[in-house]
Amino acid sequence: MTFSRPSGRPADQLRTVTIERSFTRHAEGSVLVSFGGTRVLCTASVENRVPGFLRGKGEGWVTAEYGMLPRSTHTRSDREAARGKQGGRTLEIQRLIGRTLRACIDRNALGERTITLDCDVLQADGGTRTAAITGAYVALVDAVNLLMKRGDIKRNPLFGAVAAVSVGVYKGQPVLDLDYAEDSDCDTDMNVVMNDGGGFIELQGTAEGHAFRRDELDALLVLAEKGIRELFDAQQAALAQA
Amino acid sequence: MTFSRPSGRPADQLRTVTIERSFTRHAEGSVLVSFGGTRVLCTASVENRVPGFLRGKGEGWVTAEYGMLPRSTHTRSDREAARGKQGGRTLEIQRLIGRTLRACIDRNALGERTITLDCDVLQADGGTRTAAITGAYVALVDAVNLLMKRGDIKRNPLFGAVAAVSVGVYKGQPVLDLDYAEDSDCDTDMNVVMNDGGGFIELQGTAEGHAFRRDELDALLVLAEKGIRELFDAQQAALAQA
Amino acid sequence: MTFSRPSGRPADQLRTVTIERSFTRHAEGSVLVSFGGTRVLCTASVENRVPGFLRGKGEGWVTAEYGMLPRSTHTRSDREAARGKQGGRTLEIQRLIGRTLRACIDRNALGERTITLDCDVLQADGGTRTAAITGAYVALVDAVNLLMKRGDIKRNPLFGAVAAVSVGVYKGQPVLDLDYAEDSDCDTDMNVVMNDGGGFIELQGTAEGHAFRRDELDALLVLAEKGIRELFDAQQAALAQA
Amino acid sequence: MTFSRPSGRPADQLRTVTIERSFTRHAEGSVLVSFGGTRVLCTASVENRVPGFLRGKGEGWVTAEYGMLPRSTHTRSDREAARGKQGGRTLEIQRLIGRTLRACIDRNALGERTITLDCDVLQADGGTRTAAITGAYVALVDAVNLLMKRGDIKRNPLFGAVAAVSVGVYKGQPVLDLDYAEDSDCDTDMNVVMNDGGGFIELQGTAEGHAFRRDELDALLVLAEKGIRELFDAQQAALAQA
Amino acid sequence: MTFSRPSGRPADQLRTVTIERSFTRHAEGSVLVSFGGTRVLCTASVENRVPGFLRGKGEGWVTAEYGMLPRSTHTRSDREAARGKQGGRTLEIQRLIGRTLRACIDRNALGERTITLDCDVLQADGGTRTAAITGAYVALVDAVNLLMKRGDIKRNPLFGAVAAVSVGVYKGQPVLDLDYAEDSDCDTDMNVVMNDGGGFIELQGTAEGHAFRRDELDALLVLAEKGIRELFDAQQAALAQA
Amino acid sequence: MTFSRPSGRPADQLRTVTIERSFTRHAEGSVLVSFGGTRVLCTASVENRVPGFLRGKGEGWVTAEYGMLPRSTHTRSDREAARGKQGGRTLEIQRLIGRTLRACIDRNALGERTITLDCDVLQADGGTRTAAITGAYVALVDAVNLLMKRGDIKRNPLFGAVAAVSVGVYKGQPVLDLDYAEDSDCDTDMNVVMNDGGGFIELQGTAEGHAFRRDELDALLVLAEKGIRELFDAQQAALAQA
Repeated sequence: MTFSRPSGRPADQLRTVTIERSFTRHAEGSVLVSFGGTRVLCTASVENRVPGFLRGKGEGWVTAEYGMLPRSTHTRSDREAARGKQGGRTLEIQRLIGRTLRACIDRNALGERTITLDCDVLQADGGTRTAAITGAYVALVDAVNLLMKRGDIKRNPLFGAVAAVSVGVYKGQPVLDLDYAEDSDCDTDMNVVMNDGGGFIELQGTAEGHAFRRDELDALLVLAEKGIRELFDAQQAALAQA
Repeated sequence: MTFSRPSGRPADQLRTVTIERSFTRHAEGSVLVSFGGTRVLCTASVENRVPGFLRGKGEGWVTAEYGMLPRSTHTRSDREAARGKQGGRTLEIQRLIGRTLRACIDRNALGERTITLDCDVLQADGGTRTAAITGAYVALVDAVNLLMKRGDIKRNPLFGAVAAVSVGVYKGQPVLDLDYAEDSDCDTDMNVVMNDGGGFIELQGTAEGHAFRRDELDALLVLAEKGIRELFDAQQAALAQA
Repeated sequence: MTFSRPSGRPADQLRTVTIERSFTRHAEGSVLVSFGGTRVLCTASVENRVPGFLRGKGEGWVTAEYGMLPRSTHTRSDREAARGKQGGRTLEIQRLIGRTLRACIDRNALGERTITLDCDVLQADGGTRTAAITGAYVALVDAVNLLMKRGDIKRNPLFGAVAAVSVGVYKGQPVLDLDYAEDSDCDTDMNVVMNDGGGFIELQGTAEGHAFRRDELDALLVLAEKGIRELFDAQQAALAQA
Repeated sequence: MTFSRPSGRPADQLRTVTIERSFTRHAEGSVLVSFGGTRVLCTASVENRVPGFLRGKGEGWVTAEYGMLPRSTHTRSDREAARGKQGGRTLEIQRLIGRTLRACIDRNALGERTITLDCDVLQADGGTRTAAITGAYVALVDAVNLLMKRGDIKRNPLFGAVAAVSVGVYKGQPVLDLDYAEDSDCDTDMNVVMNDGGGFIELQGTAEGHAFRRDELDALLVLAEKGIRELFDAQQAALAQA
Repeated sequence: MTFSRPSGRPADQLRTVTIERSFTRHAEGSVLVSFGGTRVLCTASVENRVPGFLRGKGEGWVTAEYGMLPRSTHTRSDREAARGKQGGRTLEIQRLIGRTLRACIDRNALGERTITLDCDVLQADGGTRTAAITGAYVALVDAVNLLMKRGDIKRNPLFGAVAAVSVGVYKGQPVLDLDYAEDSDCDTDMNVVMNDGGGFIELQGTAEGHAFRRDELDALLVLAEKGIRELFDAQQAALAQA
Repeated sequence: MTFSRPSGRPADQLRTVTIERSFTRHAEGSVLVSFGGTRVLCTASVENRVPGFLRGKGEGWVTAEYGMLPRSTHTRSDREAARGKQGGRTLEIQRLIGRTLRACIDRNALGERTITLDCDVLQADGGTRTAAITGAYVALVDAVNLLMKRGDIKRNPLFGAVAAVSVGVYKGQPVLDLDYAEDSDCDTDMNVVMNDGGGFIELQGTAEGHAFRRDELDALLVLAEKGIRELFDAQQAALAQA
């Protein structure tokens, strides 16, 4: 019996990844990232203030907000602004994005300013949070470079890069970068965030169907490491352009 | 002394208008409309249910929601979903969009279904509400055509087209289609919504500085009629494409 | 066939307008305004602080809030305080009232203080927002006069007066000052706010049924100008009393 | 040394009480009640539905909502609708009003309908909740009489009358019907609600300064009983008018 | 016919009262109080700040918050945090607890700090608010003693003790300390808060069924005074332990 | 140099774990679980209804809510009910608890009913979510057994057990079951949820300081497996008692 993914991709293949910088004009960094049919607009906004708990400490802050346009999905979802609150999934994802990007920045070197990464999903096809992290990193680099060019900060606060991908067990087979068709029908789903030194920043694995075994976990981590290396290449290629 | 607009446009010239259909994949209609630097994603979503006050009456409903991405603007605005409520300006604009689009549809012919126009501003440079109305009309046409093609509705519920433009008195001179630089520095700002029969659907004029005189109003209306005729052409050209 | 309004009024006749000052005791200005069966209590409250965006600039602020008592209407409406938010119509109206009253005051001459106009509808019969603007102006004058009498401000910050009326096309005929019976059954509804120099402060016209033509608009504006002149007389008469 | 109340009233004297029926036009009962400078508009609204917990049981419901106009008080209070929630004091008072009025009605005889008493304070000078209860009872009677006149209900669901007054220890002396000057400077404040059979419906006493002794409590109850008898007379006199 | 309470207790008997100090470890005072099956965790938290209206006045503040765990009751109640607001009953009770505890403390002697009494019901069987007041007093004493031991305050700000009990008319008979079975089936329910000087701090009586007569009130107050004397003993016994 | 944990525990030692059943009386399952100083009250409540998306499908639902008492922590936290919303951390944790417990139950065998696990932290000292999962499982078993005893369900819907523990890298050393002192000062923190078949239900690892390497991850997983085996023993021991 031969295994096949809905998209026809080999098990260890990412979807087509594109990273378009300066997608909008006002933000200090603005990136439209696509992982196949998943498209997320990531903007980095710099503000010269920090949250209350950091005031007067000379440190900066990096945070994230996440949203899905109501019809980024197959069927329309309620607009969170109209419902009057952000759902648990939204809060969970934006906390994840902010936490992982703080893992690659020296907040003292940033100085008392906040960089907010707004990640808004224009079109969803699985993996929106991993695309958001991967794209937000590029927007963050653009914002930091602008601050350095302006002379607002002296030395680069960024150390290393951060990227993320999902892996999962689909029909018994470990696969890389789940699209929606796989995501909604898989047994295990894991989001992996790494830095370019090969370290893990975050690991979130969930057994949707049967619990996953240690050997499955090992196979998933190998796939994730491969995919994330390719994502670092895509980030660098995008940043190399004028 | 010669008068000049920040953009160098003649007083009666629209900004470059583009209308890109099928910008995203899931919605029944999906249009990215640009009025110069203002870019709004308008999606039309069809759902087989109506609000409570219409249930069982055999009539349909058309409504709109509006939002600005936090960094669509020069400085970052709070995310309304995070603040926990939509602001007065947002509610005012989405009520306007819904009302004006209901003015070109026969709700009995639509049947018991709701079409929601989500208008999300990706980049703002003045005139987001008029761009939203103009783009949302095209998304609505696409959604209605899909319903007819599927055989869900028998006859076209749309009668006539709807488009909108802003006009204003800038440095004493009536001008068409204000951009942000003009909008934030003008005396009078008016949004005009018309149908293709030459009738007014909505007129909203505000004196920001000095009150406007009757002759200024007349001059503004002439400009608006000219601009809206050109917008109808742009809508038809977009709809004529495959 | 003869045309007739539900109230039997000629097309260009206002309802009976009364303006009762000092209706309640604590506010710096307190006016009960009636346009026929529409009764709105408008109070002006002076506070020695300004919103954050004006702090330290030496300027004052004028703002408005609007509400309807739950049973001011034919059937009881939910109390907005109990529902936990103000509806879109409420926000739209209070933004309108605040904006139009700011159009007749020199905020530098007011100094760093806020005047809040609370417009609460005790009984509704159409035209609550135009009655509110017309009454709130008188409350504002009373508050400003008190500030001058107390020596808190040196020169009168008010320039000109502001009043408002609705006009509409009812059964094909332009009429002045719509009551509820007309308002709920008319084709076009327009709210007009003017100053006593004859300039337009705000114009909001909506086609409820068919779109309105340019000649209908012209006729409506003539009616509005006539009605507003009479409202200025009523304001002055009320203010002339001790 | 002679004792004297700020108003000059004897210790056992109510303020001037007025009860004006049909103050507004739409409600089934509409009463403007005044206890001196305290003026509360009480409307009774009948709706042919009951809360979920009563559906299908053949019983009716009586409930109340309470609000203060922002400038009914000496200094302006925030509008609860704008703040997005009703405060604890508001909820406490409206629960009290609803509970005490349910104590004089046979909910089976009322049938599956709800009567909502909206008590909105136009002007506050102490004792708003007791004025509200006293006035709301009259509005309730008017609404019930209308239901009977219309033939919607067969027999009168009301048994007995309900009225309320405050008493307190002011400068060591028990006094009846506290006004604001006394209320804000008294040691003990008690709200008493009774029926016309001489029974207590509700008793809420609070020591603001020193704890009150049993003999003070006894003296306060005597005053309250006297005041409430006079309020029953005022209610009956108002109801006796056409 | 002999009268009997569901619990078999004599009419003037409290349930078993236990007061366990240091129930949790972090709070400055932490008391688990039980009135029979009613168990409330009362913690006292000291913070070196006061609400805005007291800032800079050298006075302290004592306040309370109340909550019921969702399944402290027979059937599960919604979690207030999930519903997004505290209900009217909750607000009413926490206002009562705070007010009565402020009646036994000299806020000047406390200095600019706030003590918050959190009263969380782990298990409910009637009388949660009276148990909360009685237990919170002990937690407050522990917190104040800690402040004195640390030298943060010079002299004891507490004067007198505070305790509370419910009384009611159950099947025509005045009884002390209602449990849930009695509470849900009684005619009159009264909560009484007293200080150890024999003065009343708060009295809240409600006729749930028929209105209560003056002689019933007198009998209830006698029962309450007896019960509260016993509660003062229980508080002192608990505080006497190491 | 020798490594030492603040508590003096060996690296692979759990804190003292206690599981007390029937801690409160009303819930179908009620467990007070302690992991050292962390104490969480977990109740299981059965209701004969399911969320809207499951209605009529014959399936049941298991969900969780999580809360911390305001002073369960070192310094008092705001009460979420008072703030008007649950924070992101709370939502994240309760989603985790619900998801992991659904992984051990056959929802068809449960039938159309909902079991809600309320996990309320009475005292926090690190690891509240893992204690909650471990305790909630026991409460769920008690509730399910009661349903079977009552004959409400025919066959046991539970398959396998679920327990959870945290592991982390503290001062460079992998350790089991972090307490607060370790948690607030560690480099990597991972929560592991497993079933008694040795499968992973959920894995959530976060690098708080430096990114963690693959060999560190492997060491953490070994520790977690050891700790969770001991937790299964503790659960079974508790369930073996009458």
